[in-house]
Amino acid sequence: MSQSIAANPDRLLPADPGTRSIARELLGRVQDLPIISPHGHVDAAVIEHNTPFPDPAALLVSPDHYVTRLIHASGVPLDRLRGSTTAEPDSRTVWHEFCKAWPLFEGTASGYWLRTQFDSVFGLRQEISAATADASYDAISARLLEPGFRPRQLFKDFNIEVLATTDDPLDDLASHRAIAQDPTFHGRVLPTFRPDAYLNIAHPDWSANVDRLIAAAGDGGSGYAGYLTALENRRRYFVDHGAVSADHGVRTPATLKLDAGDAAKLFDRARSGGATAQDRDDFEAHMMHQMARMSVEDGLVMTIHPGSFRNHHGPTFENFGADTGHDIPFAVNYTEAIRPVLQDFGTAKDFHLVLFTLDETVFSRELAPLAGFYPSVYLGAPWWFLDAPDAMLRFRSAVTETAGFSRSSGFIDDTRAFCSIPARHDASRRIEASFLARLVAEHRVSEDRAHELIVDLVDGSPRRVFKL
Amino acid sequence: MSQSIAANPDRLLPADPGTRSIARELLGRVQDLPIISPHGHVDAAVIEHNTPFPDPAALLVSPDHYVTRLIHASGVPLDRLRGSTTAEPDSRTVWHEFCKAWPLFEGTASGYWLRTQFDSVFGLRQEISAATADASYDAISARLLEPGFRPRQLFKDFNIEVLATTDDPLDDLASHRAIAQDPTFHGRVLPTFRPDAYLNIAHPDWSANVDRLIAAAGDGGSGYAGYLTALENRRRYFVDHGAVSADHGVRTPATLKLDAGDAAKLFDRARSGGATAQDRDDFEAHMMHQMARMSVEDGLVMTIHPGSFRNHHGPTFENFGADTGHDIPFAVNYTEAIRPVLQDFGTAKDFHLVLFTLDETVFSRELAPLAGFYPSVYLGAPWWFLDAPDAMLRFRSAVTETAGFSRSSGFIDDTRAFCSIPARHDASRRIEASFLARLVAEHRVSEDRAHELIVDLVDGSPRRVFKL
Amino acid sequence: MSQSIAANPDRLLPADPGTRSIARELLGRVQDLPIISPHGHVDAAVIEHNTPFPDPAALLVSPDHYVTRLIHASGVPLDRLRGSTTAEPDSRTVWHEFCKAWPLFEGTASGYWLRTQFDSVFGLRQEISAATADASYDAISARLLEPGFRPRQLFKDFNIEVLATTDDPLDDLASHRAIAQDPTFHGRVLPTFRPDAYLNIAHPDWSANVDRLIAAAGDGGSGYAGYLTALENRRRYFVDHGAVSADHGVRTPATLKLDAGDAAKLFDRARSGGATAQDRDDFEAHMMHQMARMSVEDGLVMTIHPGSFRNHHGPTFENFGADTGHDIPFAVNYTEAIRPVLQDFGTAKDFHLVLFTLDETVFSRELAPLAGFYPSVYLGAPWWFLDAPDAMLRFRSAVTETAGFSRSSGFIDDTRAFCSIPARHDASRRIEASFLARLVAEHRVSEDRAHELIVDLVDGSPRRVFKL
Repeated sequence: MSQSIAANPDRLLPADPGTRSIARELLGRVQDLPIISPHGHVDAAVIEHNTPFPDPAALLVSPDHYVTRLIHASGVPLDRLRGSTTAEPDSRTVWHEFCKAWPLFEGTASGYWLRTQFDSVFGLRQEISAATADASYDAISARLLEPGFRPRQLFKDFNIEVLATTDDPLDDLASHRAIAQDPTFHGRVLPTFRPDAYLNIAHPDWSANVDRLIAAAGDGGSGYAGYLTALENRRRYFVDHGAVSADHGVRTPATLKLDAGDAAKLFDRARSGGATAQDRDDFEAHMMHQMARMSVEDGLVMTIHPGSFRNHHGPTFENFGADTGHDIPFAVNYTEAIRPVLQDFGTAKDFHLVLFTLDETVFSRELAPLAGFYPSVYLGAPWWFLDAPDAMLRFRSAVTETAGFSRSSGFIDDTRAFCSIPARHDASRRIEASFLARLVAEHRVSEDRAHELIVDLVDGSPRRVFKL
Repeated sequence: MSQSIAANPDRLLPADPGTRSIARELLGRVQDLPIISPHGHVDAAVIEHNTPFPDPAALLVSPDHYVTRLIHASGVPLDRLRGSTTAEPDSRTVWHEFCKAWPLFEGTASGYWLRTQFDSVFGLRQEISAATADASYDAISARLLEPGFRPRQLFKDFNIEVLATTDDPLDDLASHRAIAQDPTFHGRVLPTFRPDAYLNIAHPDWSANVDRLIAAAGDGGSGYAGYLTALENRRRYFVDHGAVSADHGVRTPATLKLDAGDAAKLFDRARSGGATAQDRDDFEAHMMHQMARMSVEDGLVMTIHPGSFRNHHGPTFENFGADTGHDIPFAVNYTEAIRPVLQDFGTAKDFHLVLFTLDETVFSRELAPLAGFYPSVYLGAPWWFLDAPDAMLRFRSAVTETAGFSRSSGFIDDTRAFCSIPARHDASRRIEASFLARLVAEHRVSEDRAHELIVDLVDGSPRRVFKL
Repeated sequence: MSQSIAANPDRLLPADPGTRSIARELLGRVQDLPIISPHGHVDAAVIEHNTPFPDPAALLVSPDHYVTRLIHASGVPLDRLRGSTTAEPDSRTVWHEFCKAWPLFEGTASGYWLRTQFDSVFGLRQEISAATADASYDAISARLLEPGFRPRQLFKDFNIEVLATTDDPLDDLASHRAIAQDPTFHGRVLPTFRPDAYLNIAHPDWSANVDRLIAAAGDGGSGYAGYLTALENRRRYFVDHGAVSADHGVRTPATLKLDAGDAAKLFDRARSGGATAQDRDDFEAHMMHQMARMSVEDGLVMTIHPGSFRNHHGPTFENFGADTGHDIPFAVNYTEAIRPVLQDFGTAKDFHLVLFTLDETVFSRELAPLAGFYPSVYLGAPWWFLDAPDAMLRFRSAVTETAGFSRSSGFIDDTRAFCSIPARHDASRRIEASFLARLVAEHRVSEDRAHELIVDLVDGSPRRVFKL
């Protein structure tokens, strides 16, 4: 009986009947538009090779920290849900744990995505439960073996037009090139330049990464100058392979303009292992300024997402690595932090800077006022923990009255879970329709304009902001 | 005419008719469930001795800073509402001030509790007003003299199953013992270990308290070692008398692990009066780590509520003492602060850590992500200023999409006002029903599941989280 | 077709039909009440001389940073919208830019004010659009030439009873005096003492301002003593000319009580150009304490609005000056910052301190608890970016449950745009009606009381708080 809610055409729409009927009309305008996904973590090689999906647990549970998180909180050790540094759990056992834990997901964003997938992608008609764990495992496994259930067919079935991946600056982007050159595949799969591990001195591999970077692309230069040259070259390489953005996961939104001499000295200190904590902060902040400068020059959209304490639980990180469910947000302040970049590039021609946050308080206080003045600044969609129905409504409520509808990035699914992409975009479209429907019902926006606005939010904004 | 809203069966339920009818059904599932109150400030001796309640003002106005607060803000000096260090106001005068000020409470949480009490506990059918102050005083006074209007009968009439008190670590818990051994009384009245004045060096009585603590329970030890032993012994004594939790009112959520030698030195410095401000912060943070360690060992649930600037107005504190309405919240950050405890005990077996906040911004940003990963962490109910209908809805909206419904503590009334207990739990149940009803109406949760969830929120969660 | 929403009698009211019908009734109680505007930026000379309004662009676009902001964000250089230090754009060109950009304002507070003005003040029946830019320019221009379309007639047509301006401490207030003495004019136009540029050492003109201040009003004194005397004298002059409040735009809400000797030394250091950054912060904080002291003595209501990073974009400030759309809010903390003032004056007789914020997080966390205890503290209306329908509803939801309805300042339009005053007050009244209607629909406030409350919120509160 619960399962029926996954298929309910009014799911996520507002309860008030008048508002709901407006929302239905609005949703109708965008439900069949293609999916544009300008930021995510799908592996391009999977599309290139049309790799079959693994078993249900390996596809839907083990690698997805959104999913293992709550099960872990309920007391199931992580090694029963995913591989550790020493062992790999049995797939069917993982699936049983998941099915037993399924009631925990009630009311969560992950629960919505999963339930929608089970219904519309896997055709399950029964609610997930411990009692039916084997049956659902077998049903999904059978589906995974169907010839039509391959990445390329799903890409088409999901109506994806653009899918951006997230890539290491030294990636040769062979998969992206192969896909682009394949006349039988019609979607766009674009790389994204993600240089965190080359910019953050605190990263354990920083110095080794810098060695490789300079060797590969420094044009014979060395030191700080060679480093900048190599970054510029690799960005250009990404641009030549279709990249539209450079993505930056930073600890804080701090930016700083050092003069070249000071920056070079700091770089050298770091290379010799003598950087202080302050040096590390300054260098990362300075490199954000450099990244902005390069974006102005090469046109890559700059996206920033700060404010997460990565790998909060040391023992879990040691056993299971990063991205295992314990990156915890903290308070951020953009107004002073981002100013050095905006002083210099805030009105630079065609510079696009998309600012994300996990701290909702900056939406109305800082981000909407910034995006409401600077032509370069766009409001990143509510992301990660905030990519959820109520949180998305809070976002629109917090930013619209100051920044209108024209300053937001469009939806970002940020997912590693390929099969969840349609469910995530579906949720977003339903929430945009719900928000606009309320404004129409309150006579704040006319129905005609709302119909134009929702098309622009779903389709126009991401194309414009990400230069697609 | 206003009085009628106190008795309206739909009070606090959502306005949309469809959602309201779902909410009514949900409320019906929990309206008659027993009250479980795992944290509050009722005096166990009152239950033990079945002490009659004093007059209306002394029962409902003078000791309740929730009530005197707003009257004071309207310009009535506090000495017209409660006793000062030098005088005690006449009870009927206090009641007149209250009745005159009653319109101020419109729309407040306190107003809801009071109005509900007047209606359902005291049987007043007329709205409180200055004009009828004597009549309402007399009516309540008469009720207080009725033989059935005694704590033990009300305990039963209110359908209270468990009531936790808050107690000094050196309390002999004689009242709790007497109640537990009384075959004629069927409720559970449990002590709670509250050691703030023994852990916080800045407390004016700290050193004297430590003297008494070590003398009473140090097993002959002295210094820091004797101090830890004594704390462990007193916790054990509380456990033996039915305690299920240890409660910590701290300035900030900071925690810190010092090694034993450094901690002992710091303790000695403090005992000799030489502690710096930094020492005080470090020691309190370190003792939170010790309290967590002891909770892991003895099983007491650990509850933390930081972020209140106590006794903000010096002159009022000097004349009227603590808890007189001017504890003012400030911003807190849990993510980094609580990490030392979670590194060591975040996944410890059966460790329960309930985190409260008066700063709503941490709900979605920090607490839901923490509780959504760590098996030990539970979301404390919205508390104090946030124990109010809209604030409770904001809480559920902020945490559910990340942490679901399984990670919250259940309702906490935190009250000194015994007669307000049913009204507080009633408000909470109505709001849980309202929140869930919206999710049902939006097809986010099925109606069947919502019926299970509300029973679990009201009854299952507090039993599970507080090990009842 | 969109235009019709401006005239819809239900605009901004809640969608739920039952709640809406309650809201309509409530709105009916206040729709015709006179406008009381205790804080704004209209020029008194315009009222005195009944100056005709300039052309549409100079009236509605160029000087209003609320309006130029979003157009600038869309990529239109500011010199196409307003005069710079070197040139002045053609008025019709500005209007064309505005009309082209009109869709950007959908869903914003500014859009609501503008659309309401176009409909009810200028009688435009067609939605603004690029295609009709010349027609709307001509229609408004014609309206501006009508003899009835002069400030004094509009003052009457708008039903304004009190309008406060914002004035330099050395202003001679001749316009205010002339208006007060004019028997043909019946509104009250009151000055407001705004001494920021005389208190903030960091202000480029501070020392010159202080010279002029002491020379004009120091009673022959010099140094810090003469400075305080001069401030006291000028405040008295304002009181004598009808001022009811002193307004303070400060960077942070910090307050500090220095003893007179230290303050004098700090003052001297600043006068000789030797003040440090810490000195500047301390002096501003100390002067807030002095301003509070003077308010206690002379009765001027003290209003504080901190937390805006002024002139965030240097290049824009250099070319276009202040108030050009890039003042960006940041996080503030009131609890500790305001304590020195409240320790000394928090319960002082007839002291009124109105606290504003652009950081919504302090509403429930700090401001409602402060206003719910201190008789002096009032909640400033949601202001600037927060003066918008959803933000106003969030404000009421955040503060009411703790502080009730009696502790807020009443609506503040804070506008430079005279013709937008009715639209702003109209929006506020609709939102108060909407909030109260929900409480009535949820049986939290009786309908009778709600009718009293809305009259008090709209009319009683500003009169009481601003001593009108």
